[in-house]
Amino acid sequence: MAWSPRHSAGRRLQLPLLCLLLQGATAILFAVFVRYNRETDAALWHWGNHSNADNEFYFRYPSFQDVHAMIFVGFGFLMVFLQRYGFGSVGFTFLLAAFALQWSTLIQGFFHSFRGGYILVGMESMINADFCAGAVLISFGAVLGKTGPVQLLLMALLEVVLFGLNEFVLLSLLEVKDAGGSMTIHTFGAYFGLILSRVLYRPQLEKSKHRQGSVYHSDLFAMIGTIFLWIFWPSFNSAPTALGDGQHRTALNTYYSLTASTLSTFALSALVGGDGRLDMVHVQNAALAGGVVVGTSAEMMLTPFGALAAGFLAGAISTLGYKFVTPILESKLKVQDTCGVHNLHGMPGVLGALLGGLVAGLATREAYGDGLESVFPLIAEGQRSATSQAMHQLFGLFVTLTFASVGGGLGGAAWGYGVQG
Amino acid sequence: MAWSPRHSAGRRLQLPLLCLLLQGATAILFAVFVRYNRETDAALWHWGNHSNADNEFYFRYPSFQDVHAMIFVGFGFLMVFLQRYGFGSVGFTFLLAAFALQWSTLIQGFFHSFRGGYILVGMESMINADFCAGAVLISFGAVLGKTGPVQLLLMALLEVVLFGLNEFVLLSLLEVKDAGGSMTIHTFGAYFGLILSRVLYRPQLEKSKHRQGSVYHSDLFAMIGTIFLWIFWPSFNSAPTALGDGQHRTALNTYYSLTASTLSTFALSALVGGDGRLDMVHVQNAALAGGVVVGTSAEMMLTPFGALAAGFLAGAISTLGYKFVTPILESKLKVQDTCGVHNLHGMPGVLGALLGGLVAGLATREAYGDGLESVFPLIAEGQRSATSQAMHQLFGLFVTLTFASVGGGLGGAAWGYGVQG
Amino acid sequence: MAWSPRHSAGRRLQLPLLCLLLQGATAILFAVFVRYNRETDAALWHWGNHSNADNEFYFRYPSFQDVHAMIFVGFGFLMVFLQRYGFGSVGFTFLLAAFALQWSTLIQGFFHSFRGGYILVGMESMINADFCAGAVLISFGAVLGKTGPVQLLLMALLEVVLFGLNEFVLLSLLEVKDAGGSMTIHTFGAYFGLILSRVLYRPQLEKSKHRQGSVYHSDLFAMIGTIFLWIFWPSFNSAPTALGDGQHRTALNTYYSLTASTLSTFALSALVGGDGRLDMVHVQNAALAGGVVVGTSAEMMLTPFGALAAGFLAGAISTLGYKFVTPILESKLKVQDTCGVHNLHGMPGVLGALLGGLVAGLATREAYGDGLESVFPLIAEGQRSATSQAMHQLFGLFVTLTFASVGGGLGGAAWGYGVQG
Repeated sequence: MAWSPRHSAGRRLQLPLLCLLLQGATAILFAVFVRYNRETDAALWHWGNHSNADNEFYFRYPSFQDVHAMIFVGFGFLMVFLQRYGFGSVGFTFLLAAFALQWSTLIQGFFHSFRGGYILVGMESMINADFCAGAVLISFGAVLGKTGPVQLLLMALLEVVLFGLNEFVLLSLLEVKDAGGSMTIHTFGAYFGLILSRVLYRPQLEKSKHRQGSVYHSDLFAMIGTIFLWIFWPSFNSAPTALGDGQHRTALNTYYSLTASTLSTFALSALVGGDGRLDMVHVQNAALAGGVVVGTSAEMMLTPFGALAAGFLAGAISTLGYKFVTPILESKLKVQDTCGVHNLHGMPGVLGALLGGLVAGLATREAYGDGLESVFPLIAEGQRSATSQAMHQLFGLFVTLTFASVGGGLGGAAWGYGVQG
Repeated sequence: MAWSPRHSAGRRLQLPLLCLLLQGATAILFAVFVRYNRETDAALWHWGNHSNADNEFYFRYPSFQDVHAMIFVGFGFLMVFLQRYGFGSVGFTFLLAAFALQWSTLIQGFFHSFRGGYILVGMESMINADFCAGAVLISFGAVLGKTGPVQLLLMALLEVVLFGLNEFVLLSLLEVKDAGGSMTIHTFGAYFGLILSRVLYRPQLEKSKHRQGSVYHSDLFAMIGTIFLWIFWPSFNSAPTALGDGQHRTALNTYYSLTASTLSTFALSALVGGDGRLDMVHVQNAALAGGVVVGTSAEMMLTPFGALAAGFLAGAISTLGYKFVTPILESKLKVQDTCGVHNLHGMPGVLGALLGGLVAGLATREAYGDGLESVFPLIAEGQRSATSQAMHQLFGLFVTLTFASVGGGLGGAAWGYGVQG
Repeated sequence: MAWSPRHSAGRRLQLPLLCLLLQGATAILFAVFVRYNRETDAALWHWGNHSNADNEFYFRYPSFQDVHAMIFVGFGFLMVFLQRYGFGSVGFTFLLAAFALQWSTLIQGFFHSFRGGYILVGMESMINADFCAGAVLISFGAVLGKTGPVQLLLMALLEVVLFGLNEFVLLSLLEVKDAGGSMTIHTFGAYFGLILSRVLYRPQLEKSKHRQGSVYHSDLFAMIGTIFLWIFWPSFNSAPTALGDGQHRTALNTYYSLTASTLSTFALSALVGGDGRLDMVHVQNAALAGGVVVGTSAEMMLTPFGALAAGFLAGAISTLGYKFVTPILESKLKVQDTCGVHNLHGMPGVLGALLGGLVAGLATREAYGDGLESVFPLIAEGQRSATSQAMHQLFGLFVTLTFASVGGGLGGAAWGYGVQG
């Protein structure tokens, strides 16, 4: 079965040529700049020739595979719930993510592992590239149905650069903590996509709204996406943390936060639904908000109770967002949010950033012991107070919102120009 | 698309209020009692500050993620084969499991990791909570279609307590081995659900039986569940075993047992099917019986041949159960077993407990060497003979059947009272 | 819902009896020959009683679970795209793979781990058996729809033996490198199936071609298979490599190769499609060719650029194969390749073998450093030059094509005789 991108008639060469051009360009850049890092090169390092601490590299492998599964299966199928876009959403997810993995390897590598004129790549760069692909797919969820693959690839070309820049400012310049990416992935991806969607507002899309309705089997496919995101979120948030207690704590907080967001989603969905009915769209999406909301703080000493409370709040806000905020966004602000990314990634992401600031501000030597060094190195070294770290965290949120908005706006403007040109 | 629980009209507030109540109660109990354990707390332990043996904690992480995937994807989709309950089965699986994870963390923690007034949680408690959620979902399979989410949550509230109590009696008091839970998970979950289903017998359900028929796409969704259970069962059975040879042996025995139950299921299904036709329900379910039947013994020196023989027998019994036992259960004993959990979990679970007793009774110092210490510590220390361990194993089965029956009966009685009240 | 194998009427006992016979035979062989290996037996080895290097065995476990998931979910669902064979393809995949796992444990064990009269099994033999099952499922893809389960089991009976023999000749006699199986798995499985399909040519199959058409939901199910293969391919290719840099390099090369084959597939599919339309069959299959093409060379110092270039080429060739080669194969050579395995496994497999020869021929002590010992031990020890290793690699391809062709031909001849007899 074939499926057709928009504007297929006179522009049939656009997609092939763009794919070839982008692939050719990244391949040349790979040839010039990209080299295996120490743990990946045959000549530099081997099993056995290393201390126990080097075992770290082996333990990253399962985390990589979990994140990789979550991004592709999770985002790939979550968006299938719209019958009309089923094919396109899975297919374009695939294309977009494949390109984003290559492109973000170059951009993130330039910012984070550029040594002696070369970008060094290994397990960590693969995990980071998957994270960046996640942000691109979140933005895709906001504009799904408005655009064809050519525009989506151009969106990714711009977004990956801004993602890398924003991440560099937050993690390297501001030295903000954001292991699971409440700010760098969810907030950034959501608002980039939403601003882009605003610029691309098409009134006639509203008229064909009934074609967006979900159906039985599409909902079951979307539940595959939901469940994969739900089960692998502990690995997603903990993939870049310190091993040992850091990884365990992050996974555990994420796990409990997700159980609480699931319960609050069912509660609120039945409460606001007509006649006590549950809305599948809430279950498919809002139940995941618990993973987003602890993206910054799960690494910290959030406590198991804190994880439950955060998850509960996120699930509730997300469900209420689908019911009350999305219609207002569309009718008043002319933002058509096809998959409701504002509810799943936008609001919970901002909430997660604020929660991260709060928990950072409460950090004490007593609570973290020697672990303070790995969670908040600047506080441990006395270069920052906990309050100062909290302020930096909040400033990181502000920076992220700025990059996302400017980026989405720029993207939309370029796009509009291209359509008219 | 929305889906509607039973009794939605006058009782629309029941589900939201129950969710909020349960979540509020567990959150308060978490706040008071639950703390990070040593391997999860920032102040207590770090990567590097430990001996090689402490690496154990890192190796548990992939096991956790595998079990988590198996429970949610496996059970979530296996029950979709009934077209009529597709939505409900996935959605309620999600709700039930999310609640069970929280509640069993408290109950199991109280029995197993209550230290200095606190329940200490970490990787192991997450794996154990997933196991308990598995038992709840098995019971759910027996009553699917009879009940709405409110009753299911109340069932989980009771079942998790009895699961924890039964597990405590078996593992801590009787010191019985049951790594993969032939008794504690499968037998307990199946008979709890079946007794409950008996008490809730509704003659009119039979009349609408044709609505239970499966259809093409639902069967493919169910096969997703089947395959996830099949592939991750080695990790499920081996998640709580000793690392090294224990984990490898358990995984290997489970792997071969499943291949044999698959072959015997196809053989028996074609044999008893009219005209040599295969029945998809057999393939979806009975092929998995090999995982259940070695739940107790896979950790032991079952031998690869023993694994094949056990799996073969389990697949055969399970297939014959679907053909001959289920109709009798329904017509004679008035037990409506919607998903056939008696065939997949009940009979193979009991068989697995008996097999575990047999293999334990044959344990010798010669066969286990120094490994006797980790598989049967009481035999290694001379406190028990192999025969005595076998007797304890069988007594564990009796205890499990008692707890399951009393629990299911109590649950049904309370339920019936609630319906009339 | 029931589904019916071909020839069900007068031959209803064939499938059950064959399953029972095969299972009985393998069980007896297991009883006589198969024993736990050192890392699996309770008496021989334990956690703690070993050096750091022994940790290797723990790190294999996640690789096993990834490969196992890829084989069953990936191949199980990829073939569902043909609406007409949906049930059969998933069900028979399951049956075939379950038998192949047992049978190849015996055959591969006989060639590779036969010690003191026993076949020793453990984690590695499970991974190897999964690899062999992969080859059988590839052949199944070529003959899907032509045959019933009885013939498929007999095909597996023969193919597993030849697979084991071919693998032994390549890996142990020729000492060829082929970690991810470009030759031993993909080339062998594809050409075995294609020759078999040729021998079984049935002109009337062409007439019912319209029944092979895919439909919306079947395509989404197939995408589940595609995505699972795509995400787990790095683990598949790296499962048998040396740990540390070997595993990381193999996974990284596979990861980037797949991103490039995805982009080239979209480019070429839109280019050759009428009206710029993308063909779902290309996306479902050709996007995976990047995993096949680096099956031999990903372990080597291919460089990240080399991985991109190889993946790009494989995706392009595979897409063009679906468009131009498959119709010629069918009309001119009378090879009906139901799932297009020639395009996904055949041509990319041969290309991967050639690429492996090329990269091996370029190996220098300078590029591999001390790692030369683990990648090319014979070159490191001075027993072979790089050019000689390259020649051996190419000869390995020739041997593989010979075994596959003779095996497929023999299988087809025996089959034809059986049908007439």
